Amino acid sequence: MSQLDRAQQADKAERFRALHRGPKVLVLPNAWDVVSARIFEEAGAAAIATTSAGVAFTLGYPDGQKISRDLMLAAVARIATKVKVPVTADVESGYGDLPEDAAETARAVIEARAIGLNVEDAAHNGGRRLVDLSLQLEKIAAIREIGKQLGVPLVVNARTDVYLLAVGKPESRYDEAVRRLAAFRDAGADCLFAPGVRDIDTIGRLVRDLAHPVNILAGPGSPSIPELQKLGVARVSLGSSAMRATLGLARRIGQEVLSEGTYRALADAPSHAEVNGIMQKTF
Amino acid sequence: MSQLDRAQQADKAERFRALHRGPKVLVLPNAWDVVSARIFEEAGAAAIATTSAGVAFTLGYPDGQKISRDLMLAAVARIATKVKVPVTADVESGYGDLPEDAAETARAVIEARAIGLNVEDAAHNGGRRLVDLSLQLEKIAAIREIGKQLGVPLVVNARTDVYLLAVGKPESRYDEAVRRLAAFRDAGADCLFAPGVRDIDTIGRLVRDLAHPVNILAGPGSPSIPELQKLGVARVSLGSSAMRATLGLARRIGQEVLSEGTYRALADAPSHAEVNGIMQKTF
Repeated sequence: MSQLDRAQQADKAERFRALHRGPKVLVLPNAWDVVSARIFEEAGAAAIATTSAGVAFTLGYPDGQKISRDLMLAAVARIATKVKVPVTADVESGYGDLPEDAAETARAVIEARAIGLNVEDAAHNGGRRLVDLSLQLEKIAAIREIGKQLGVPLVVNARTDVYLLAVGKPESRYDEAVRRLAAFRDAGADCLFAPGVRDIDTIGRLVRDLAHPVNILAGPGSPSIPELQKLGVARVSLGSSAMRATLGLARRIGQEVLSEGTYRALADAPSHAEVNGIMQKTF
Repeated sequence: MSQLDRAQQADKAERFRALHRGPKVLVLPNAWDVVSARIFEEAGAAAIATTSAGVAFTLGYPDGQKISRDLMLAAVARIATKVKVPVTADVESGYGDLPEDAAETARAVIEARAIGLNVEDAAHNGGRRLVDLSLQLEKIAAIREIGKQLGVPLVVNARTDVYLLAVGKPESRYDEAVRRLAAFRDAGADCLFAPGVRDIDTIGRLVRDLAHPVNILAGPGSPSIPELQKLGVARVSLGSSAMRATLGLARRIGQEVLSEGTYRALADAPSHAEVNGIMQKTF
């Protein structure tokens, strides 16, 4: 990659970082392949986040780091080279539990032309276990160090899976999540993410207690984006839900054509020419 | 690939061939990635056909052989190694206008573990031009020869683009389509495909005139599957329409979350656990 490319990528990283502190909440409808990213970009998304679950499903894997780092980052690269907006990569736990793994993943993220990443504290192949906090802080430091070395200041969205993995007693989870997220913040993470937090009171409390940009995973049953903005949330993502919704439609289409032999579920398809036009704009 | 694998692949090809002459019309809701193929398989599809347009869109290309043979066949291989039912590959015009190109493509189809292919008579990079009929027959012969050599009798769905490319005067198209399809039949094609033929009278006439398995591209506005079966149609496919319908939903999701900030379009998403279960069955 040329020096100019790197400089442009660094600019993109700073623009994406600034979107976490703008007047409006940053809304990221996560993409799983190039055309879904282009569709969201055309719909007005200011940036594209990937969904690791969605990417894994398209390539034939279940979720949870069954896919290799190389395959995941190749998918990120396909997306990042075909959209104009900044792309942030969901890289699960960084494809390994060690700081060296996190560094290698951060390097691959930059080579894929993405400018940010999510990093989880769930153990790489550890079932429902979290990585020790001190080790996770070393991973975050290693990611930031690679960003400095390569001249692309990656935007780090540091995620704790305390809620998703239901770690510890329910009444202890909030404190444990805040303890971890505050430590991530102090280690230089740009945004803090606790998927599984859904109720409006807990979200408001989390934003106040952390005093730092917070990412909320939203979907049916969550407070609306305007409500989340009022609570001070910096960033909202959809995870794999948009991808899974399209699979629900694919299933209804398949079931209808295979049973009744009709095509009602196909009614709202954009034309071939329209989708082709969306893809031609990247050429 | 072992001898045993090849023998199993040959069996699969024969089973797929037989589905063109069974009591029921063969319905193929075309897939574009592994998870869409798994969804259609779980919905009861007896085989999976790929959509080249859909695969191209997911990987960042417009339709029409902008993607390389290698990338297209790598997508086919991902699908064919993760579903149990036979997989037939949409390989556009065979990635070249020469019999050698068609042979190379057929070899790649077999290596990808697919057991059939669509081959179009549209010129490879020729705008709205068709390949000379005699050359197209050589391409079909070359494909069949590779199937014999490698011991996997590929099921050939030979397609004419007379209608899609609007070749010649409207009143001459039917005769030209029949002339080409009958020649493909006599050259050993297993099934004959004229996308763009939609009205019930023309479909019935085509089936009678060809006296051979016919593939109809169906969607909103087409006769229903039971009607097509009554007309004697052997095989019905959806082309890229199922894929495009899911993109329409992705767009509605993106637009809604970015404008109103609500999640109604996500309502019918299957759960993460459910999709994960569908993908785990392939492991």
